[in-house]
Amino acid sequence: MIILGLDPGIARTGYGIINTDAPFQFVTCGCITTLPIYPLEQRLDIIAQDVTNLIDTYNPDIGVVEEIFFGRNTTTAMKTAHVRGVLLQILHARHITVQELTPLQIKSRLTGYGAATKTQIQNMIKQQLRLTSIPQPDDAADALAAALCAEKITL
Amino acid sequence: MIILGLDPGIARTGYGIINTDAPFQFVTCGCITTLPIYPLEQRLDIIAQDVTNLIDTYNPDIGVVEEIFFGRNTTTAMKTAHVRGVLLQILHARHITVQELTPLQIKSRLTGYGAATKTQIQNMIKQQLRLTSIPQPDDAADALAAALCAEKITL
Repeated sequence: MIILGLDPGIARTGYGIINTDAPFQFVTCGCITTLPIYPLEQRLDIIAQDVTNLIDTYNPDIGVVEEIFFGRNTTTAMKTAHVRGVLLQILHARHITVQELTPLQIKSRLTGYGAATKTQIQNMIKQQLRLTSIPQPDDAADALAAALCAEKITL
Repeated sequence: MIILGLDPGIARTGYGIINTDAPFQFVTCGCITTLPIYPLEQRLDIIAQDVTNLIDTYNPDIGVVEEIFFGRNTTTAMKTAHVRGVLLQILHARHITVQELTPLQIKSRLTGYGAATKTQIQNMIKQQLRLTSIPQPDDAADALAAALCAEKITL
């Protein structure tokens, strides 16, 4: 089964793709970047196009989309919500099963510990996917972490 | 010029279409409704499909999308932001000029008065579009109000 993990953000949307045909196998990861010089609608469309290309290429069965952490910056959270809307809609339109996970759920599932540090999470990703180094940038690693936490489904 | 006004919301997204070839002419209005029994991604996709059908049918030049009013309910605002993301992305993908207006801007432009009441706004819509009654539901009226406030552009 192919899992696409997505860590949404207007400036950087991380993606990570794994194959769960035992054992977990790393497929690819990266980050869709958009520049603030472009209007919001254009940035959203760049993300939509890039995610559509990923779907066309890797044909995922499940899309795991990280939920928004309500931090101090509501403006950032609102922009992230715009990106999430686009991602969720595209996944549904492409008949990909959607799973939404909070950062806390991802930490807990991956390390058994909700207050795990970024380093602990990254080491767990490296270990589970048998990588020689920690994936970069952080957004891509976060997306891989989300993908690793997908619940198994019967297709 | 054909203007599509949109008042985004996860349960109800109002739309209103006008033709600005002098004088303003009412084309259509209504409300895309989604039920809370469906998961978020499905509700977003229903809205996406309905808006795409409107675009296919009426071929608007400008899409005016109301900005989110930050009320007391952040959860509602976040869901509205998901819908806005979908709407903005679709408009951009279809090469429709996007304009974003706050509720305050809409009130001010329509009545010259930022604290205008709902009734004052609705009467102004009725008058400007020479309607015999106030458009229903409220979301459709709000979307028509947004459409009436579009800034003229040169195509």
